[in-house]
Amino acid sequence: MREIVIGVDLGGTKILYGVASLEGDILYKNIVPTRSEEGVEHVLEKMTASIQSLITDYATTHQIKGIVIAAPGPLSYPEKVVLNSPNLNWDKVALQDEMQKRLNRSVIVEKDTNVAALGEYYFGQNRKYKSLIYITVSTGVGGGIIIEGQLYRGSRGGAGEIGHMVVEPNGALCGCGRKGCLEALVSGTAIANKAKGFKVINNSLGKLTAKEVGDKARQGDELAQSIIYSAVDYLAMGIANLINIFDPQAIILGGGVIQGLQDLWLDRLRKQVFISAFPLNRTDLQIEITKLGEDIGLYGCVAVMLNQVN
Amino acid sequence: MREIVIGVDLGGTKILYGVASLEGDILYKNIVPTRSEEGVEHVLEKMTASIQSLITDYATTHQIKGIVIAAPGPLSYPEKVVLNSPNLNWDKVALQDEMQKRLNRSVIVEKDTNVAALGEYYFGQNRKYKSLIYITVSTGVGGGIIIEGQLYRGSRGGAGEIGHMVVEPNGALCGCGRKGCLEALVSGTAIANKAKGFKVINNSLGKLTAKEVGDKARQGDELAQSIIYSAVDYLAMGIANLINIFDPQAIILGGGVIQGLQDLWLDRLRKQVFISAFPLNRTDLQIEITKLGEDIGLYGCVAVMLNQVN
Repeated sequence: MREIVIGVDLGGTKILYGVASLEGDILYKNIVPTRSEEGVEHVLEKMTASIQSLITDYATTHQIKGIVIAAPGPLSYPEKVVLNSPNLNWDKVALQDEMQKRLNRSVIVEKDTNVAALGEYYFGQNRKYKSLIYITVSTGVGGGIIIEGQLYRGSRGGAGEIGHMVVEPNGALCGCGRKGCLEALVSGTAIANKAKGFKVINNSLGKLTAKEVGDKARQGDELAQSIIYSAVDYLAMGIANLINIFDPQAIILGGGVIQGLQDLWLDRLRKQVFISAFPLNRTDLQIEITKLGEDIGLYGCVAVMLNQVN
Repeated sequence: MREIVIGVDLGGTKILYGVASLEGDILYKNIVPTRSEEGVEHVLEKMTASIQSLITDYATTHQIKGIVIAAPGPLSYPEKVVLNSPNLNWDKVALQDEMQKRLNRSVIVEKDTNVAALGEYYFGQNRKYKSLIYITVSTGVGGGIIIEGQLYRGSRGGAGEIGHMVVEPNGALCGCGRKGCLEALVSGTAIANKAKGFKVINNSLGKLTAKEVGDKARQGDELAQSIIYSAVDYLAMGIANLINIFDPQAIILGGGVIQGLQDLWLDRLRKQVFISAFPLNRTDLQIEITKLGEDIGLYGCVAVMLNQVN
């Protein structure tokens, strides 16, 4: 029987869940809205029902090697308690214990950015780079760190919060309460907020999404271009900082904002990082965009299982 | 016979060398000026002569387990070539090979901040914290990272360059060519430069060292206080960034500026870091000043040997 993993990528607005083989073939996937405003119980029950139905569908024809849930951080380790998550509006939810109780089965919960980093390591890069940092830029900014082919969680599960590296002490206010975090300067939300702040100019950038600001920039709008380029320059600064501190082999970028703006961002990002990173640390350094797209969380769930076995 | 390590801490202005037992008892130490302006050969010959004389003195009564040299970075790994070092004014010196040739013996070269971090891990904290970041603030700012009881060098030997984390994009110019690196805001040189820039005010801060700016601050001089507190606030910001990224158990501080300003800095630093670090990541986090003082490099040379053996 073919070995499979049931994976759930729990996000603030949607839940992606599915089934994939240990080789990384996605056999099934589906997306449902999270509706976290209906409460913790609602979300837990929804995940339980989705997983339960996949178990029913696959248990007789496949060998279920594990159930893996990618959850937003902060997530404590090794307890796997979701702490004070702004995305889900949860506080201290013992997600792993709760799901194991409901399913009466072993479940592995891991921070979503860590899951994505492992997914990239195994299925994006085929373990080519033993040390890499995966950075996601979407509504927020997060990171996952692979060192010597192992996930680096830090001593309490808190490692990789690179969205909360302050790089502009008097910069825009971040959701975390500090000013000038990378997330407050680079995320989709940050780009949209900046466009909103500039609404008097050009009479058009009033309520645009990051994607629309990008479209304006492509059409030659100078204000939109300044917003887009300022954001990527901060991202480059943050990445150069990480390179000087970690000296990784590769930086892999993902997330909706990166995917949507890569034509405007990638060349400039590489150039800026090259200027700012130490010569030793940038030697043969790869900066790439993930090819796993929105399914990176599902690939990551398989990777978590592979990482567990090895 | 007692087992000893011959250690050399090669600095930009002075060379500290000595003999210590594997248990960390310093049996002999001496300091000589580096005089790097007399050229690479001069420095290599001086180190060779010092080590040679220690070998002569100790070889019959002790068992020499190894010779370890702590050298300024950037230092490539695993080749151990000193690259483009501003401190020594060296460029591409194959230090480990050169010293092995001269001594006709095995020599281990390691980056000075890494050596200090290992020294702190073994002899400062007695391996209590398995993950720690050692930060030195003196004429420059550097770091060494211990993860799971192992030195983290990064993929090319370039990890730990935390002095070159940009935290103020339009800040003071750094020796590395970028603006607003931690080193350009926090180091002794940075503090002295800032006082120099303010010379018109107070008619006295014209050519003070960081130590003298500290003295002025203690005497109640408000300008000196603003310089001193601004520097420690940037340091706290950089440390909070590291905590959010690495989630270590402890941050240990060392170097002349830290030692000299700890009465003015430490409480404020801890408070600022506490405010800025993620709640999960700051749980039971220790921020301490090393007790190994200026000999940390010698202790570190022993630690490198212990780390090699284990």
